[in-house]
Amino acid sequence: MNTAVSADAFDAWSARALDAVESALRAWVPADAPAGLGEVMRYGVLDGGKRLRALLTLAAAEAVAGADPFSAEPALRAACAVELIHAYSLVHDDMPCMDNDVLRRGKPTVHVQYGEARAMLAGDAMQALAFELLTPEGERLQSAVPPALQARLCALLARAAGHAGMAGGQAVDLASVGVQLDLPTLRDMHRRKTGALLQASVLMGAACGPCTPATWQALSDYGAAIGLAFQIVDDILDATQGSDALGKTAGKDASDGKPTYVSLLGLQAARAEADRLHDSACQALQRASLARPDALAALAERVVCRDH
Amino acid sequence: MNTAVSADAFDAWSARALDAVESALRAWVPADAPAGLGEVMRYGVLDGGKRLRALLTLAAAEAVAGADPFSAEPALRAACAVELIHAYSLVHDDMPCMDNDVLRRGKPTVHVQYGEARAMLAGDAMQALAFELLTPEGERLQSAVPPALQARLCALLARAAGHAGMAGGQAVDLASVGVQLDLPTLRDMHRRKTGALLQASVLMGAACGPCTPATWQALSDYGAAIGLAFQIVDDILDATQGSDALGKTAGKDASDGKPTYVSLLGLQAARAEADRLHDSACQALQRASLARPDALAALAERVVCRDH
Repeated sequence: MNTAVSADAFDAWSARALDAVESALRAWVPADAPAGLGEVMRYGVLDGGKRLRALLTLAAAEAVAGADPFSAEPALRAACAVELIHAYSLVHDDMPCMDNDVLRRGKPTVHVQYGEARAMLAGDAMQALAFELLTPEGERLQSAVPPALQARLCALLARAAGHAGMAGGQAVDLASVGVQLDLPTLRDMHRRKTGALLQASVLMGAACGPCTPATWQALSDYGAAIGLAFQIVDDILDATQGSDALGKTAGKDASDGKPTYVSLLGLQAARAEADRLHDSACQALQRASLARPDALAALAERVVCRDH
Repeated sequence: MNTAVSADAFDAWSARALDAVESALRAWVPADAPAGLGEVMRYGVLDGGKRLRALLTLAAAEAVAGADPFSAEPALRAACAVELIHAYSLVHDDMPCMDNDVLRRGKPTVHVQYGEARAMLAGDAMQALAFELLTPEGERLQSAVPPALQARLCALLARAAGHAGMAGGQAVDLASVGVQLDLPTLRDMHRRKTGALLQASVLMGAACGPCTPATWQALSDYGAAIGLAFQIVDDILDATQGSDALGKTAGKDASDGKPTYVSLLGLQAARAEADRLHDSACQALQRASLARPDALAALAERVVCRDH
C-alpha cells in the first residue's frame, strides 16, 4: 500500500464514512423520546468522538464485500450500534460513582449537563437502542438485513458489551485502583474493557459480507491487535498530552492510582509494544483474503500514530 | 375454567415453571465473571421475586404451542432474558441517584451490598446478558433457537426495554416527582415503565410457537391489560401494605410525592379499574385461539388478586 497516495484516499473515505454515520445516528437516535430522554441520548452520542469503532465496522464491511459500505443498511446499522454501546459506556463511566469525570470531548459530561439519574437512564436506553438498530422491523428492512444476520450481529455485540467483555473489563478496572497489577492482568483488563468492542466492530462489519473462516480469524486477530494497541496509545497520550488536546481530563489515570502501560513498562517500551501490535495487525490483514483492505490498513496506522 | 380445580393445577404448573427458570438463571448468569462482577449480577437476579415476567413468557409459549415449555430452549431463554432486564432495571432504579432504596425483596439493595459503581456495571452487564441468552452460539443451540427467532426475540426485548418502553417510562417517572399528572399521562408512563416489558414477556413466549396474526393481537391486548393492572395493584399495595409484606419500603411513592393511581383515583376506583382490566385480559384470551390458555388465565387472576 502506497502510504503517500493512500493518506489522501483514506481522508476522503473517512470523511464519507463519518458523514454516513453521523447522518444515520441523527436519524436513528430519537429526538422525541419521553420526558426529554431523547435529548440526553443525543447529547451523549451525537457530534462526538473519532467514531473509530464505526469506521472499523464500515472498513471491514468494505474489505470483505469489495463495495462501498456507506449506504449499506446492515453495515451502517452495525456501525451505529457499536457507537451507541461505546457512547453509553462513556456516559456511565463518567458518572461520580465511577470515574467522576466532568469533561468529555470538550463538553460537560452527560451527568453534569442533565443530572445523574437521566445520565444513567440515557445510557441504559442507548444500550437497548443498539439492539433495536440491529433488529429492524418491516418488510423492506427485514429483506435488507436478513434475520440470520440480525441475530449474528446481536450475538457479537452482546458478548463484546457484557460481563466477559467491556463491562467485565470495567469491573477489573474498578477493582484495580491503587493495586499493583502485573502486565498479563493489565492486558487482560484492556482486552475486555476496550479491545472486545473494537474487535467486535471489525467482526460485525465482516459479518455483513461474505467471509471465509480463515478471513474471519485473520480479521479477529487484526481486531484484537489494534484493540490493544489503541489502549496502549491511550495510556501514552494520557501521560504525555494536556486536557485541551485530549478533550478530556488528562493525567487522570496516574492521579487515580490506576495502573497503565506507561506506569508498568515506561514510555519507550509502551511505544514499542504499540508498534509491535501495529505490525501484527498488518500481518493479519495480509493473511486475510480481502477485496479492499486499504481502509482497514489505514485505520490500523491511525490508531497507533494518533496524537489525541 | 373451573377456578377450584385450576388453582391447584396452576400451583403445580407455577412450581415447575419457577424451578425451570431458577435453574436456568443459575446456569446462565456467570459465577466467574471478572473481578467479582458475576457475584454482583447473581445477587441482583437470583432467588428473587415472583418471576411474573418469566411465568408469562412460559405460559404464552405453552398457550400457543400446546406443549410443556419447561424444557423448551427458546421459551426458557426468553423467560430468563426478560427477568434479567427486569432485574437490571431494579438494580439501577434502586440507586441513590434514582429512588435511593435500600431494601428489595427483603435484602439490602445491590448498591448497598456492593457499592454504586459495581451495581451500575452489574446492571449494564445484565442487560447485555439478556441479549446473549437470546442469541446462543454453536450448532445445537442454533438449531434449537433458529436465527430468525433469535432476531425476533431481540427485537421485542430491545424495544420493550428502551427509550419508547421501560427506560422512557422511567424518565417520565423521574420527571413526575411532585408534579400533578393527569390520568392519561400516568397511564402512558406505566404502559412504558412496567407495561411494555410485561407485554413483551407474553409476546416473546408467543413468538416461540406457532401464532396467527389474530392470536398475536389478542395476546398483545392481554399483555397490555395485565401490564397496566399490575401497576395499579402495585400502587394499591404500596398505599395499603407494610414494608414486611412487600419486601421493600412501603408508602414510598406517597412520601416521594409521586402520583399514583390511588392518589389520582382513590382506592375504590383504582380497585375497580384493576378489575376492569382483568376482565379485558380474560376477553382477550377468549379471542385468541390458544391450545392451552389455562396458565395465562391463572396469571391474569394472580396479577390482580395478589397481596404482595
